[in-house]
Amino acid sequence: MRIAVDAMGGDFAPQNIVAGAADALRSNGKITKLFLVGDTTRVEAELKKLNFSDPRLQVVHASEVIAMDDPPVQSVRRKKDSSMCRAIELVKQGEADAIVSAGNTGALLTAAHLKLRTLAGVERPGLACIIPAPENIFVLMDVGANLEPSPGILVQYAVMGSLYSKQILGYQNPRVGVFSIGTEEMKGNELTLEAYRRIKQTDLNFIGNVDGHDLFSNVADVIVTDAFVGNAVLKACESSLRVMGRWLKDELRKNPLRMLGALLAKGAFKALRRKADPDEYGGAVLLGINGICIKAHGASSAKAVKSAIRIATEFVESHFNDRIVEEIKRSNAKLQQIPIAQPTV
Amino acid sequence: MRIAVDAMGGDFAPQNIVAGAADALRSNGKITKLFLVGDTTRVEAELKKLNFSDPRLQVVHASEVIAMDDPPVQSVRRKKDSSMCRAIELVKQGEADAIVSAGNTGALLTAAHLKLRTLAGVERPGLACIIPAPENIFVLMDVGANLEPSPGILVQYAVMGSLYSKQILGYQNPRVGVFSIGTEEMKGNELTLEAYRRIKQTDLNFIGNVDGHDLFSNVADVIVTDAFVGNAVLKACESSLRVMGRWLKDELRKNPLRMLGALLAKGAFKALRRKADPDEYGGAVLLGINGICIKAHGASSAKAVKSAIRIATEFVESHFNDRIVEEIKRSNAKLQQIPIAQPTV
Repeated sequence: MRIAVDAMGGDFAPQNIVAGAADALRSNGKITKLFLVGDTTRVEAELKKLNFSDPRLQVVHASEVIAMDDPPVQSVRRKKDSSMCRAIELVKQGEADAIVSAGNTGALLTAAHLKLRTLAGVERPGLACIIPAPENIFVLMDVGANLEPSPGILVQYAVMGSLYSKQILGYQNPRVGVFSIGTEEMKGNELTLEAYRRIKQTDLNFIGNVDGHDLFSNVADVIVTDAFVGNAVLKACESSLRVMGRWLKDELRKNPLRMLGALLAKGAFKALRRKADPDEYGGAVLLGINGICIKAHGASSAKAVKSAIRIATEFVESHFNDRIVEEIKRSNAKLQQIPIAQPTV
Repeated sequence: MRIAVDAMGGDFAPQNIVAGAADALRSNGKITKLFLVGDTTRVEAELKKLNFSDPRLQVVHASEVIAMDDPPVQSVRRKKDSSMCRAIELVKQGEADAIVSAGNTGALLTAAHLKLRTLAGVERPGLACIIPAPENIFVLMDVGANLEPSPGILVQYAVMGSLYSKQILGYQNPRVGVFSIGTEEMKGNELTLEAYRRIKQTDLNFIGNVDGHDLFSNVADVIVTDAFVGNAVLKACESSLRVMGRWLKDELRKNPLRMLGALLAKGAFKALRRKADPDEYGGAVLLGINGICIKAHGASSAKAVKSAIRIATEFVESHFNDRIVEEIKRSNAKLQQIPIAQPTV
């Protein structure tokens, strides 16, 4: 399979991106072609530093870069020769099967949506990420694409997120929930109440509302929500873990006895860091567009880029988008038979 | 000052509630009267167990209890002789200055709003909680009262949250932010974009949007949002801390070396637990109603109840509601002069 990598996107580009792509080529025999799209001089300098060459690798020149703080829509329109847009074009033209970028999230979502378009039957694409919990790994969707979705869009997220859990994560019958502020059916806002009513009528393994307190309690394998809430929840979790790590570190350094204790127990801290390491999970996936699009996080290390490329190959390999088209068609047909709820006071 | 305590509300009522009230009376000389409202027999049995008596204490009988999972509106309407409703009535009748309850949140918000009404100029009350961060303690509001507020309501939350930070937490010039999904002015949904535009025009110390990644980075002392997002963020933080604590514990038990290390460093873990201990903070405050209403969390320990009672006395002592009325009046007058934004595409 053929992967287009935006070599200039991210806080540590092109260095980490090129290094991650090289690692991916070294370890992943399924890649038949990898495009590194960006400033040829800089990309080749990185390759030289790594002393890396591979016949499957092709550097594609792009003269512009969409910066992390560029306004998404304008930058996609204006920077036609940006590494991100060029990489997406490779997918559009059928030269690559997937695009991987650690660049500006808004620009990537906009460019992928505009250039690749949505899959048949899909109303809006959504950004899905996976979150590790003690007893399961769950898909949270949407975490960035659609700030004010309709209930129907949340139903489609449930269908696509469920496929993610099944096809990529290997859950046989993923439990799907609507993120809300209480588990009871009547708890929620207008969006979640109506989404609940509709998802209940699909063939999905729907378990109802998921309360924020139960995020990590193995109650659902797929949790759907709007992008505002999804993004808020994801970042709140990340911030909490970071602040707790920092607090713990400060406390452990306060006296020699604690420092000795920390030294003896360091294996535990390492294991914990590994469990919560976002680099293992390779970033978020934009589901519902006509192509595979992986958003690695902005501060991606080489390892994170390599993971993102691995995820891309897994999506390509499972013919993921064909499955989305089938399942969305089935779900749309089923829901068309169900009347829209009248608003209640 | 006079505090009415709902003795039957919460997962561990009346036991923890009575014990917390007794502790409060022992340590807090400012309390001139404390009503314990609930089933007299059970409340008095708890007092007897503790061998506690105090001339300031008065047990007030209520024959019913609103359960934690009762539907809020119906239970408030039907259970007129519930401990919660009776305790609120004491405030309404001017016999108590504040109500403290660890009971059903929805019912408490409904009953307090219905019976005590909003303060002059306040559109809707909001539930404010405080969250400890390494370098500051911030107010997050709303975390439960109003799922779909208008931008104007968020402005009032900013005013009231700012007063909380100033009067109770002692911040001289609290920095106020709107919770959003990015720090830039144009990032957000319809609600936050318009709330941003309006709060910017108040006299508050407005710092703009607060991104979820910066929650604990000491960028704002007051963060306003709708109750759905506030509740989601609060619970996501709590869940993350809990799961990380659990993971760390599991890892530290995996071998004798780690266990020894954990033993040596146990002071650090204790300090951390204390820092993140919700019992220290006494619960959330419903701001904007004609009375002081403190919601202690459902699983409150005696210590949490004691803290909630302390918070109640602090609010009463600072004549908090008089200040709200003044500040809301000033802010409403100021914002009336500003035209409403036309929706943009």
